[in-house]
Amino acid sequence: MSPIAELSLAELAALRSSVEARYDAFRAQGLKLDMTRGKPASDQLDLANAMIALPGNGDYLSASGEDTRNYGNLQGLAEARALFAPVLGAPPEQIVVGDNSSLALMHDCIVYALLKGVPGSQRPWSKEQTPAFICPTPGYDRHFAILEDFGIRMLPVAMTDHGPDMDAVEKLAADPAVKGMWCVPKYSNPTGEIYSDETVARLAAMPTAAPDFRLFWDNAYCLHHLTERRNEIANILEECGRACHPDRAFVFASTSKMTFAGAGLAFFASSPANVRWYLARAGKRTIGPDKLNQLRHVRFLRDLAGLERHMDAHRALLAPKFVAVTDALQRHLGGSGTARWSAPEGGYFISVEVIEGTAKRVVDLAKAAGVALTPAGATWPYGEDPHDSNLRLAPTVPALADVRAASECIALCILLAAIEAQTALRASAA
Amino acid sequence: MSPIAELSLAELAALRSSVEARYDAFRAQGLKLDMTRGKPASDQLDLANAMIALPGNGDYLSASGEDTRNYGNLQGLAEARALFAPVLGAPPEQIVVGDNSSLALMHDCIVYALLKGVPGSQRPWSKEQTPAFICPTPGYDRHFAILEDFGIRMLPVAMTDHGPDMDAVEKLAADPAVKGMWCVPKYSNPTGEIYSDETVARLAAMPTAAPDFRLFWDNAYCLHHLTERRNEIANILEECGRACHPDRAFVFASTSKMTFAGAGLAFFASSPANVRWYLARAGKRTIGPDKLNQLRHVRFLRDLAGLERHMDAHRALLAPKFVAVTDALQRHLGGSGTARWSAPEGGYFISVEVIEGTAKRVVDLAKAAGVALTPAGATWPYGEDPHDSNLRLAPTVPALADVRAASECIALCILLAAIEAQTALRASAA
Repeated sequence: MSPIAELSLAELAALRSSVEARYDAFRAQGLKLDMTRGKPASDQLDLANAMIALPGNGDYLSASGEDTRNYGNLQGLAEARALFAPVLGAPPEQIVVGDNSSLALMHDCIVYALLKGVPGSQRPWSKEQTPAFICPTPGYDRHFAILEDFGIRMLPVAMTDHGPDMDAVEKLAADPAVKGMWCVPKYSNPTGEIYSDETVARLAAMPTAAPDFRLFWDNAYCLHHLTERRNEIANILEECGRACHPDRAFVFASTSKMTFAGAGLAFFASSPANVRWYLARAGKRTIGPDKLNQLRHVRFLRDLAGLERHMDAHRALLAPKFVAVTDALQRHLGGSGTARWSAPEGGYFISVEVIEGTAKRVVDLAKAAGVALTPAGATWPYGEDPHDSNLRLAPTVPALADVRAASECIALCILLAAIEAQTALRASAA
Repeated sequence: MSPIAELSLAELAALRSSVEARYDAFRAQGLKLDMTRGKPASDQLDLANAMIALPGNGDYLSASGEDTRNYGNLQGLAEARALFAPVLGAPPEQIVVGDNSSLALMHDCIVYALLKGVPGSQRPWSKEQTPAFICPTPGYDRHFAILEDFGIRMLPVAMTDHGPDMDAVEKLAADPAVKGMWCVPKYSNPTGEIYSDETVARLAAMPTAAPDFRLFWDNAYCLHHLTERRNEIANILEECGRACHPDRAFVFASTSKMTFAGAGLAFFASSPANVRWYLARAGKRTIGPDKLNQLRHVRFLRDLAGLERHMDAHRALLAPKFVAVTDALQRHLGGSGTARWSAPEGGYFISVEVIEGTAKRVVDLAKAAGVALTPAGATWPYGEDPHDSNLRLAPTVPALADVRAASECIALCILLAAIEAQTALRASAA
């Protein structure tokens, strides 16, 4: 297709008629498809079905003979920490295993920082004038929602192909009010970037005016590859140590998208001082995590090789869905100049940049045709995309055939919204 | 035995020799017994062993067809809420099922109140000058630890046979800085009282200067009877509604001491406005609880009758241990005027009031004889008992024979410490 900006008025009108006809055909089908939810499909959950009857009758003692049914062990089972140590890039003694939600661990770290401060804080963050976070954007709406809820200012920085725009990040970090930064360093949510080694090193080494600045390193997609390439990123804890900022990074991960989304394990890994801090705080909140679920995971996954085999099985289910989306976008929009999209090598999302000012229109058009999309703006702080141009597609839940149909429809909506905008532009120029 | 205060000096010296001899005999045995931990023994945990293989292969759909393996359902499974509705005294729609720790729910309610306020708050509690809580004392050390950690002042009030001293409570509640109150209304921790209907009604009806005052109603031992009498207390949510204070009570409970202490379910029950508030806050923290564990509990306990049968089995294991303690105390201390103790009809503790100024000495003596007791003072705010007189005994974990031996030893330690104090008193008077 030629760029629509180069079409004559007559060509544009003809294209519009043709696209509208195809769009109407979709509408007539009465589709009911949902591309909003970044969660596993039920065939992915089936991969872990053996866990439902685990650990199994009479099996409740840990390797050290601890009764996992009872209270205690705030830090989590040693064997669960050992199993995930290579994934988290931290020794087992610097890992805490929590319950089913890494988001909860992040939330609690922010709450504890607000009410008590972190190691190195001069005062609790809630006593600072106007604490702020650096937010690579587009980003994860639930990260932003926590900050918004607690009145922490959000400072967006753009993403590049190798992570956040580090010049902008370093400039912002020079402000003492800037206390932290969200990072999804591998297969970023939603744009799919992998932080380069240089980006990781700069994040670890950069001067920060706040002595208690923290990287909230949400390695949510650490093993969630979509190709045969198991991409690795630099070890942030090691980099921070090397740069003499040993306490800078809070590392988070979970098995939510490995085993069961609602019944997985969440992890916190950090420096010895941060782990002591976290445990001291969490020890006021609970007597310990669900260790029986930790044992269940250890029995099922066994070791790193078992975990990687399990993630390969996820990939086999997911990769075709992502290809279906990018194929449809390419087929309908390639060369039209109406969209750019990510082709992620991992993670749960495809991010699409459409013509400025048309993202909301695309979502409305898709909705009218029976395809639910994440609200435009959701990937921006406060839910407001100043360019109204970013869309987040989540192809994991629908069946492959449905992903295909939805992607065709979405591509047409993007094209139609772009043609409408182009038509209006020509009219206003005339 | 005669009251030791009435003994002659010679009689006192003779008693001391005899008690010391018996104490030394205990020391010589090299006991290693632990009466500190308010947690279930492993034979109690065995009662729920069938849960370890539940819900079982292929069983993961809720009654409504929801996939419990996946994300979502912040409020918890409808069938889990229905099962515990009669226990909590709230309709299922006013119940939230959390993960394994009701302490965590209480902690989070305080955190949310500090950072955001509760329904009716004029500002977050952290913006108040000096927020304070009414603390019936002796009380639960982990309740107090949360308040201490966040700098919330603790105002002790005495316990009576039918709950906290309500005249004192009503007086304190007239101060607008007083934002809440801890209550363990049935089988109070550690003193075992059951709040009378009048106490509950007064708590619900009393004027409070703070418009956002909250009763933290920790019904931890709701079904944890030690006799055949299933004691009931008045329904605090209904009483608050009747008194036109519908939002006054946050009700908490858990299955930690029903199924597995580390892998149970926790519950929050309250007014519709409070439940909406809680869910709005918790929804920033997590996408949902471990619903598979909720299904596991529903499959195992089935219904209220199943739950009550299960608690009867706990009682059969626990009641003899409590009797062993009170028997030993009565046998060694009855009539001596050296101690008063609770004979609770439920719960996990026996509370002992010893001669003022001797509780720490008793703990030291017991430790030297190989019996670990909870540190004296633990049941008071800030861990400081101004009378140094309260001891908390936790007889659930050791085997019955060990409880017997430990109780004998503790009784002797109490007696010995009292004789020492009486001897010193006579010497100083002389």
